Amino acid sequence: MSTTAYHPLTEHEAKQYALLHLNVFPQGAVLHSREIGDGNLNLVFHISHPESGRSIIMKQALPYAKVVGESWPLTLDRARIEYEALKVQEELCPGLVPRLYGYDGRLALTIMEDLSDHVIMRTGLISGGRYPLFAEHISTFLARTLFFTSDLGMNQQEKKLRMGSFVNPELCKITEDLIFDHPYRDADTNNYDPSIRDAVEAIWSDKELHLEIALLREGFLTKSQALLHGDLHTGSIFVTEQSTKVIDPEFAFYGPMGFDIGAVIANLLLNSAAQEGWSTTDEERRSRRELLMQTIQDVWDGFAAKFDSLWETSLIDPMASAPGYKELYMERLLQDTMGYAGCKMIRRVIGLAHVADIDRIEDPSARERARRLALSVGTRLVKGHRKASRFSDFAEAIRG
Amino acid sequence: MSTTAYHPLTEHEAKQYALLHLNVFPQGAVLHSREIGDGNLNLVFHISHPESGRSIIMKQALPYAKVVGESWPLTLDRARIEYEALKVQEELCPGLVPRLYGYDGRLALTIMEDLSDHVIMRTGLISGGRYPLFAEHISTFLARTLFFTSDLGMNQQEKKLRMGSFVNPELCKITEDLIFDHPYRDADTNNYDPSIRDAVEAIWSDKELHLEIALLREGFLTKSQALLHGDLHTGSIFVTEQSTKVIDPEFAFYGPMGFDIGAVIANLLLNSAAQEGWSTTDEERRSRRELLMQTIQDVWDGFAAKFDSLWETSLIDPMASAPGYKELYMERLLQDTMGYAGCKMIRRVIGLAHVADIDRIEDPSARERARRLALSVGTRLVKGHRKASRFSDFAEAIRG
Repeated sequence: MSTTAYHPLTEHEAKQYALLHLNVFPQGAVLHSREIGDGNLNLVFHISHPESGRSIIMKQALPYAKVVGESWPLTLDRARIEYEALKVQEELCPGLVPRLYGYDGRLALTIMEDLSDHVIMRTGLISGGRYPLFAEHISTFLARTLFFTSDLGMNQQEKKLRMGSFVNPELCKITEDLIFDHPYRDADTNNYDPSIRDAVEAIWSDKELHLEIALLREGFLTKSQALLHGDLHTGSIFVTEQSTKVIDPEFAFYGPMGFDIGAVIANLLLNSAAQEGWSTTDEERRSRRELLMQTIQDVWDGFAAKFDSLWETSLIDPMASAPGYKELYMERLLQDTMGYAGCKMIRRVIGLAHVADIDRIEDPSARERARRLALSVGTRLVKGHRKASRFSDFAEAIRG
Repeated sequence: MSTTAYHPLTEHEAKQYALLHLNVFPQGAVLHSREIGDGNLNLVFHISHPESGRSIIMKQALPYAKVVGESWPLTLDRARIEYEALKVQEELCPGLVPRLYGYDGRLALTIMEDLSDHVIMRTGLISGGRYPLFAEHISTFLARTLFFTSDLGMNQQEKKLRMGSFVNPELCKITEDLIFDHPYRDADTNNYDPSIRDAVEAIWSDKELHLEIALLREGFLTKSQALLHGDLHTGSIFVTEQSTKVIDPEFAFYGPMGFDIGAVIANLLLNSAAQEGWSTTDEERRSRRELLMQTIQDVWDGFAAKFDSLWETSLIDPMASAPGYKELYMERLLQDTMGYAGCKMIRRVIGLAHVADIDRIEDPSARERARRLALSVGTRLVKGHRKASRFSDFAEAIRG
């Protein structure tokens, strides 16, 4: 591929690049190029060839991040990390991530399948979409990527080398600050609505909660279990009724498995809390929440069953077949999942980055109720996580 | 320094190298060169200048390992790891590791202080030596190296980069196999005396023990807490009555803190078990064991007090000051220390590499008693480790 020096591409350059360097479009094809990213972290070019109907996505990392008006430098190495994580995920879960067409390290550019026929799951859920195959798909993604990148399912020496190539300090720093630190004190980056100031202050002074957060933070910093996606919220998942595609693994690193599983569940719970605003009747709200709760249970049960089955068929660690070890492993995985789900809910209400599910609710009192609900569910999950031993404990903490 | 292609140096070449490349000896000095290593993993040249009384050690890694007749290839990169670990340790604990005079990556060669006035601690203990400052020194070494390379005491982004440079798959593999796997089944590498076959078989069939070993193995594989020495037995420590120098950190990697602390304690306990053979009277045995037990308590207490004091003065992690977190951290550290101490005792009786403390006992029945004692203490430590909450629990498990 090209070795052009790094610079942000224009729509025209992106089109030229696709013609010159990719084997996707016919020579001399008349292409359309449109930048469709939000411009905060990456440029995203949609390159299409109307004549043949072919199209691709070219994603280029920008050397900075912009969030809520602030801008700070951010390593382009995240494009390499994203590409390498996608490669691992594609190999383990073909069909559950976009197909990869190429990578250009100099330009921090990844070329991949166009998923325009899919919708971002968060947007889909907000509009009341139903994704009957989602739990089946995402539990496969979680079980396979986490098992086969861990010491349970991959050569333990290769795992260490892979860990080295996924050292990702800058993006981990974002998580460490915004999820495991700032929401628990009066930090400048926080971003909460004045209407819930009392609930936010209660969290700042809740020492019992801080101890559990410190433990979960420690797990994020030190538990090198598996190659995580690292940012697996419903904005990183494309869906249709038949298909699920996980995107954007630029936060990938070796961390605790429960962080990825918890991210999925937290975002379903945030949407459930947001039904304060989106459901128009009590009946609709009840039914929507039941569906989301069933999805959460299906995600966990599906994950646990598939992980268990991989353990039976594909375990390579010689000591991991010690009687009782698997059961203990799954119990600690459930606890981590619950704890990290809680962290991810709390930060989406108090911290810098929110979720559209709640923020786009128009009625202020419904929005406030949704926020308070998310905080109280999140707090219960964090506080209860070390006591959980089965999914029903998790479900009970959700219901309160 | 030189960029000569790698080859094992002769005594003559080592001397020439010292003259040409080091700034230690006068120009044209008449040097003596003597290879004093055991030839299993490294060449160790003692280079001296009788006229000035100056001397140095030049340690060169060999591209293979020889243990009990077997030979297998082993990365020269371990010389870099050893050198970089020594640099970190020297900066954190000046005086507790040999001074470094240079490093030549091409030759896998580290040049350092000559410690010929010290004795290897294992040898010293076997001859009944007393090292009244050892606990004070080693607890400082442990507290400072572990605290300041962990997320508690160093920048968390730099820690990740450092973790990447200490990825050490080949040497970790030796530990994973020889400590956390082979001793628990009838593996070819095992090396136990037929006289204790019944006790060895009991360990092979002890499922409760295997579960605890699986958990400790998982910790070794995934718990990236701090930069460990990785092989901190009494053969890696030089002592005099006034001085302690930790050497040979080629197994260094990011792992669980308790593994290093446990290694020190296990080797004191192995010497204590070996008093079956070395002490000539019951009174001598009792008094020697009391001294060793007191040393163990001083190592732990010293470590805990110094670690605690660093926590109070030098903590950089914002969440780690949550009330109750430090106490929980210390409790889990004690548990890990106890578990890893147990693993290290068991493997020195059943596994490939033994300790001279026990193997050099001449009387077969005393040797057998020492081995059985080491196995039973080790087993109690491993089985009890998750239940321990203070040092007295540890001490009780030692006494049985």
